[in-house]
Amino acid sequence: MADAKNKKYVYFFGGQKSEGKAEMKSLLGGKGANLAEMVNIGLPVPAGFTITTEVCTYYYNNGKKYPKVLKEQVKKAIANIEKVMGAKFGDSVNPLLLSVRSGARASMPGMMDTILNLGLNDVTVAGLIKKTNNPRFVYDSYRRFVQMYGDVVLGLKPKDKHEHDPFEVIMDRKKEEKGITLDTDLTADDLKDLVAEFKVAIKEKTGHDFPESPEEQLWGSVGSVFGSWMNERAIVYRKLNNIPASWGTAVNVQSMVFGNMGEDSGTGVAFTRDPANGENIFYGEYLFNAQGEDVVAGTRTPLPISELEKQSPVIYKQLDKFRKTLEKHYKDMLDIEFTIQQGKLWMLQCRVGKRTGFAAIKMAVDMVKEKLIDKETAILRIDPNQLNQLLRPVFDAKEKNKAIAEGRLMAKGLNAGPGAASGRIALSAIDAEKMAAKGDKVILVRVETSPEDIKGMNASEGILTARGGMTSHAALVARQMGKVCVAGCGKLVIDYAKGTVSVEGKDIKLKEGDYLSIDGSTGEVIAGSINTKPSEVIQVLIEKTLDPKDSDVYQTYDSLMNWADKFRKLGLRTNADQPDQAENAIAFGAQGIGLCRTEHMFFGEDKIRSMRKMILSDTVEERKAALAELLPLQREDFKGIFKAMKGYPVTIRTLDPPLHEFLPHAKKEIQEVADALKVSAKKIEEKIASLHEFNPMLGFRGCRLGILFPEITEMQARAIFEAAVEAIKEGYKVKPEIMIPLIADVSEFILQEEIVRRVAKEVMAEHKTKFPYLVGTMIELPRAAITADDIATRAEFFSFGTNDLTQTAFGLSRDDAGKFLPLYVEKELLPADPFETLDQRGVGELIKIAVEKGRKTNPSLKVGICGEHGGDPASVEFCHKVGMDYVSCSPFRVPIARLAAARVVVSEKKSKKK
Amino acid sequence: MADAKNKKYVYFFGGQKSEGKAEMKSLLGGKGANLAEMVNIGLPVPAGFTITTEVCTYYYNNGKKYPKVLKEQVKKAIANIEKVMGAKFGDSVNPLLLSVRSGARASMPGMMDTILNLGLNDVTVAGLIKKTNNPRFVYDSYRRFVQMYGDVVLGLKPKDKHEHDPFEVIMDRKKEEKGITLDTDLTADDLKDLVAEFKVAIKEKTGHDFPESPEEQLWGSVGSVFGSWMNERAIVYRKLNNIPASWGTAVNVQSMVFGNMGEDSGTGVAFTRDPANGENIFYGEYLFNAQGEDVVAGTRTPLPISELEKQSPVIYKQLDKFRKTLEKHYKDMLDIEFTIQQGKLWMLQCRVGKRTGFAAIKMAVDMVKEKLIDKETAILRIDPNQLNQLLRPVFDAKEKNKAIAEGRLMAKGLNAGPGAASGRIALSAIDAEKMAAKGDKVILVRVETSPEDIKGMNASEGILTARGGMTSHAALVARQMGKVCVAGCGKLVIDYAKGTVSVEGKDIKLKEGDYLSIDGSTGEVIAGSINTKPSEVIQVLIEKTLDPKDSDVYQTYDSLMNWADKFRKLGLRTNADQPDQAENAIAFGAQGIGLCRTEHMFFGEDKIRSMRKMILSDTVEERKAALAELLPLQREDFKGIFKAMKGYPVTIRTLDPPLHEFLPHAKKEIQEVADALKVSAKKIEEKIASLHEFNPMLGFRGCRLGILFPEITEMQARAIFEAAVEAIKEGYKVKPEIMIPLIADVSEFILQEEIVRRVAKEVMAEHKTKFPYLVGTMIELPRAAITADDIATRAEFFSFGTNDLTQTAFGLSRDDAGKFLPLYVEKELLPADPFETLDQRGVGELIKIAVEKGRKTNPSLKVGICGEHGGDPASVEFCHKVGMDYVSCSPFRVPIARLAAARVVVSEKKSKKK
Repeated sequence: MADAKNKKYVYFFGGQKSEGKAEMKSLLGGKGANLAEMVNIGLPVPAGFTITTEVCTYYYNNGKKYPKVLKEQVKKAIANIEKVMGAKFGDSVNPLLLSVRSGARASMPGMMDTILNLGLNDVTVAGLIKKTNNPRFVYDSYRRFVQMYGDVVLGLKPKDKHEHDPFEVIMDRKKEEKGITLDTDLTADDLKDLVAEFKVAIKEKTGHDFPESPEEQLWGSVGSVFGSWMNERAIVYRKLNNIPASWGTAVNVQSMVFGNMGEDSGTGVAFTRDPANGENIFYGEYLFNAQGEDVVAGTRTPLPISELEKQSPVIYKQLDKFRKTLEKHYKDMLDIEFTIQQGKLWMLQCRVGKRTGFAAIKMAVDMVKEKLIDKETAILRIDPNQLNQLLRPVFDAKEKNKAIAEGRLMAKGLNAGPGAASGRIALSAIDAEKMAAKGDKVILVRVETSPEDIKGMNASEGILTARGGMTSHAALVARQMGKVCVAGCGKLVIDYAKGTVSVEGKDIKLKEGDYLSIDGSTGEVIAGSINTKPSEVIQVLIEKTLDPKDSDVYQTYDSLMNWADKFRKLGLRTNADQPDQAENAIAFGAQGIGLCRTEHMFFGEDKIRSMRKMILSDTVEERKAALAELLPLQREDFKGIFKAMKGYPVTIRTLDPPLHEFLPHAKKEIQEVADALKVSAKKIEEKIASLHEFNPMLGFRGCRLGILFPEITEMQARAIFEAAVEAIKEGYKVKPEIMIPLIADVSEFILQEEIVRRVAKEVMAEHKTKFPYLVGTMIELPRAAITADDIATRAEFFSFGTNDLTQTAFGLSRDDAGKFLPLYVEKELLPADPFETLDQRGVGELIKIAVEKGRKTNPSLKVGICGEHGGDPASVEFCHKVGMDYVSCSPFRVPIARLAAARVVVSEKKSKKK
Repeated sequence: MADAKNKKYVYFFGGQKSEGKAEMKSLLGGKGANLAEMVNIGLPVPAGFTITTEVCTYYYNNGKKYPKVLKEQVKKAIANIEKVMGAKFGDSVNPLLLSVRSGARASMPGMMDTILNLGLNDVTVAGLIKKTNNPRFVYDSYRRFVQMYGDVVLGLKPKDKHEHDPFEVIMDRKKEEKGITLDTDLTADDLKDLVAEFKVAIKEKTGHDFPESPEEQLWGSVGSVFGSWMNERAIVYRKLNNIPASWGTAVNVQSMVFGNMGEDSGTGVAFTRDPANGENIFYGEYLFNAQGEDVVAGTRTPLPISELEKQSPVIYKQLDKFRKTLEKHYKDMLDIEFTIQQGKLWMLQCRVGKRTGFAAIKMAVDMVKEKLIDKETAILRIDPNQLNQLLRPVFDAKEKNKAIAEGRLMAKGLNAGPGAASGRIALSAIDAEKMAAKGDKVILVRVETSPEDIKGMNASEGILTARGGMTSHAALVARQMGKVCVAGCGKLVIDYAKGTVSVEGKDIKLKEGDYLSIDGSTGEVIAGSINTKPSEVIQVLIEKTLDPKDSDVYQTYDSLMNWADKFRKLGLRTNADQPDQAENAIAFGAQGIGLCRTEHMFFGEDKIRSMRKMILSDTVEERKAALAELLPLQREDFKGIFKAMKGYPVTIRTLDPPLHEFLPHAKKEIQEVADALKVSAKKIEEKIASLHEFNPMLGFRGCRLGILFPEITEMQARAIFEAAVEAIKEGYKVKPEIMIPLIADVSEFILQEEIVRRVAKEVMAEHKTKFPYLVGTMIELPRAAITADDIATRAEFFSFGTNDLTQTAFGLSRDDAGKFLPLYVEKELLPADPFETLDQRGVGELIKIAVEKGRKTNPSLKVGICGEHGGDPASVEFCHKVGMDYVSCSPFRVPIARLAAARVVVSEKKSKKK
């Protein structure tokens, strides 16, 4: 990027009007854009300016240098602040103090650097003391500034927990000298001494003096904020949240206001609605005589916002008015920060508030009812995966009551992230990761969490902290991750050294690795393991133990699903092999079965025996005899499914897995099977050996079985059609769709299709019935996708088996990828694990080719997906875009897929409007 | 197909002018078209007519019925024959006799039915006796006709060898009664009796009388010929020769001429040049007083055509003139059949003659020199695979001389198919198939072969027969298949019952399964096994033991290759891992290495040890130490190859196979390795277990190794570039091309490319040298093909790894496909084994996509193929058509690929002209 002389890099805000506005988030970052907007809608904001994200990009593209014109623009902006705030930067009489904060396009709480009280030096300190007449406050600010500057800008902050912060060491020594324990007991003189000692420490550690020049302080701080864009935890956070590094951060320089100027000062954070359960109440916390960091860091436990109404009704009324103004203006729930300086209320930040999935859904539905937003907006506002939180288990009430009766209730904290979680205690993020990697369910228990812990939090089922409020780091991050969280459980005593967790006044003592249960909806912390039970939605829909009228949660879910169904164009099916699964899926909104795997049916005691007989057959006759035993059993299975599906289409896949999967492998088991089937163990062993394959995924399976042993396909077709006849006779409608797996060439399909159609004809003739049926195929091999035009001349439907298609397109066995695929995702070689979310660039392209080619030779071709991607929101959107008719996923993913299918329609509509 | 009233189904030939001509082969079949053409160029041909192939198609599409107009057209054609031949069909005075023969578009010798002497009955017999005054000849003809008609049309011919032909049984009884052994000793009356007895047998077996009506005889015979198009051996033959069933056969009805009307009659077959070695001499065989079947069936051993010049100089002169006329007219070597009836020469058939690959090449080259054809025609006339015959081994002279000295020379037969073969004796086609399936090399030894034997012949290395000439079934089919063949070895005594082969007058007796060696170039049959040695071309080019001037074979080869090189546009490279392989390839015309597999280099004693150390490393440091040991060894390997390739480009693939391939697997071997490496056996076993994969082909291999262990790629890059530096210092030019395997996404490529380029820079800087090099990738995964536009932004070349691309596109492991792939090919689910010849429809489409996409983002992208398909002629043509720059194949396939690359250019040119 070349230097542009006239380019605007600095945007002023404050007074009556800002140069920026809310829509300029890409350029000004979220914080800067919203500060500007708040000024524009008349809210009191301390004046300041935003250095744009383009400077950040420039900075990294040009060897960490700034555009030449930046300095001049900053100078002008500072002059502007001085005018609005009536103070002067570096002045010995009326000094202006500044904060320097990061502000990226997307919120990255606590990931980057912040410098407060900038502009203090030995000269301005004097002016400020005169002005405030509060030397203790001034020296406390100075002490904090020097420490912060030393830690952050000059890099004295220890890199790991085993080192000590040099400033903390000095402070501790000072307190010891004085025989005090609290920072607040330090006097103005003590603090003045500390400032001097801090400066000596800085000189010692860095070889340079602490910079007295406010200008130098400012540029040091700006550089530090830009630098923090590339610190390790910011990089990790971006990866977890899919934020591109190229976005860069803006830097906000703003005049300081102080909540710690005495008892008529204070600071707080609030949400315009409850971020945990979504209720429409003013929700927040504040502290008098404190700075913002005191609230967020969780070092002091703040008061709920409702207390403010009592303590300071005027301020509360003003704040509540701002809350309403903001919600009306932004049409969303907001997260705000405010400071009261000597009785005057200042707004320091506003942004769309993070919330649990649960709250997101409730708010979206409520706001539609409040006519604040329309249904389309509501749908776009919910990440389909958040629906999981509505479906998330709660504790089994009996077990929980029993645990409480047994005295296992340890304490109650804040209900910071809803849901119920039970698992083994980990006392550090690293241990949590390790335990989770071994397959344990983990509850991470910490005094408080910090940005360094996010990987470990991500690996845990739930998070429990002893300190910090609803807006503490733990609470914020847990909600965003959709984790169960109980925060600020003050009675908890956590001893990292001994590896124990106990409770004041109780004799429960747990060790790392012990079971612990937390209820993020109530805040309860209970020793031991408790089984969880289904959510209210599940209780209404699946268990039918709860009346829908009695469940607000269900009502919210139901409204949302109804809206989604109005918008979505994709059909929804489910993957189910059993009648009960099919029924669940219907309750969740499925309109058919997209994949019924017949092989799962063969694992029942009676069936596996006949199946093994069939595999061990030496002749066609023997094989046919074994198949004849299987026929009535399969028929019963299919009949049950047809009845459960009440006339919805049912796609049944013919036998797919390699035959060796049905044989026993352990010596003892082999002998048992041999005895049961009255053959020698040697015969079974020989068969197993003969079925051994180097690469079974690419071996004798799928339609290849039915081509070598047409009698298998014949039996399965007969079972399906006879089941259909029986179901029809009992008054049901049926729509069987027979699906041939692992087709590479249309010639294979034809051979199998001919058998299916012949048997259909025979069965219909034998029973003098007629019913519709389809014969189609899975598209799960690249060659099938490429020759889809051939295959579609015969197949009536395609169903994409994206698991196998991903494996073959990538040449990657899912079972064997564990050695390198995690590294690939970590190194961003691939944007995501292609088995979790469909690889649109490669596998998706094959799907597009197949859909286009298939529809070319068969315009009425029905197209769907039945791989596990069918329940992944991004993949569902893709399926809509390539013009599929339906997606099929596991029953519990059906609501998620419904919402995803609606969202893509709404987004398309919105982007067309633009 | 609807009946067309005016459609012409019957084409007359004879007299001065025919209704058909040579170009009408699709409609008239080869035989019919050429009979018409011979009439047109003035050769004497017995009059007749051809029922077109369209009738055959109609017949099978319409429930074995004929078009309505056919009868009338046949009637008219018979009237025409009667006019030209001056005889009348079914006449009691001057009866016309007819033959009915099949005649498909492509020759299918002996596969379909033939009926001779048609028109004979108790009435016409009398007329013919009066006319010829030769009752014995007439009754012999009648006897033959009734037998043939009974066997073929009425279906009395036994279906397998254990049954007896009812007519042969009657004949044998008659001869016994008469106390005679030869058919020729039967008198006219005996024959007359036999006719009567045959008719009784027919009535008994079929319930119907033998049809006396010549009309009925004619339509019965025509139906039988059409029916034989679908008999089993015809179907097998078509499959082996890629002849579509939809082509159908024509039927030729022609007036009979008789070579068995006495000593002034005779019959023969001939080639206008020697079909075995291609020499320009009149080559054929004849018998006086015999019918054609006597020559072809090998039941009497005929005289060479040169004898005819002595026995009947006038006829010989006339025939030799016809030979020249035909070659000049057809511009090719022809296979002709003739009959002399009472001193008059009739031509019965001419067609382009089958020949050995060896002869095909020699004739094509000679005919260019004779100015009969141009170079383009010569190139089109040779199937590139025929070049194999020029490269085919001959016996090691020393061993053979020793064998002869030891008295192991059993006999000498006709040199019917050139080359040397050694293997185990099989005495039936079925046994030959079975033995070959077990992996044995087989020599099929038969008294004579018949069409039922073709599968077994195909499975054998060589064929040896006791009876039959150069034009016997065995000789014809063997030459076509490119098999070594010694025919008509009359001294051989083959006892099927005892399973032995011995020689008259010698006490050598071999049993089935014993070793036998045959030399198809000399006709020698030698007991025991003899090692083979290279052909003359190999001796000149590779062994350099023969002066090119002394080898006609080499000169022919060389001319052809020079012409091919003038036409072809594809570059030619070879797959070679060793300097000697590289040198061979250059001798065969390769201009570079397209695939050097570095892993093959790791299997030397010293290298495998370091390799194993590397694999067993627990830390990066250990791994680097082991790699440091490998570096100088790899460097030496590469240097050798660079020097051998003399400045041609060398494409080196970085490490590809799964690491477990380098570890021992047997207990004992593991212990040895453990001792050698001074680690515990347990550690090795654990490593093997940790490297175990469910689907290793889709596992931890290819670039995935280099991504997890970048130090491997780094070492290999260093070895390559340091070798380049050393070779340059010794005065060689080098063009290394580093190829990264198993890329699925450009991001993988970038990681590996960056290492290679960094190392290149380092090595060039260290040695103050510069040289050009490329970094490219294999395209062997469908996803790579689909995202080729991304990959080509970084890769400088693509090389298609069609083995893996075929495996992943089909979802088919080559190692595991044995269970079903043969059935697929047999059932024609796939046109060919996709591992032998490239699947153009599917895999080819992926290649096309990749080439197009790749060139779009990188117009200078170099594109080649290095899978085994690079040496398959059809696949080479495909590579040319999709615009590749080169093909790479194994050294011995290079000449074949050169020719294939030229042929496709010539064909394209010819089809443009049209």
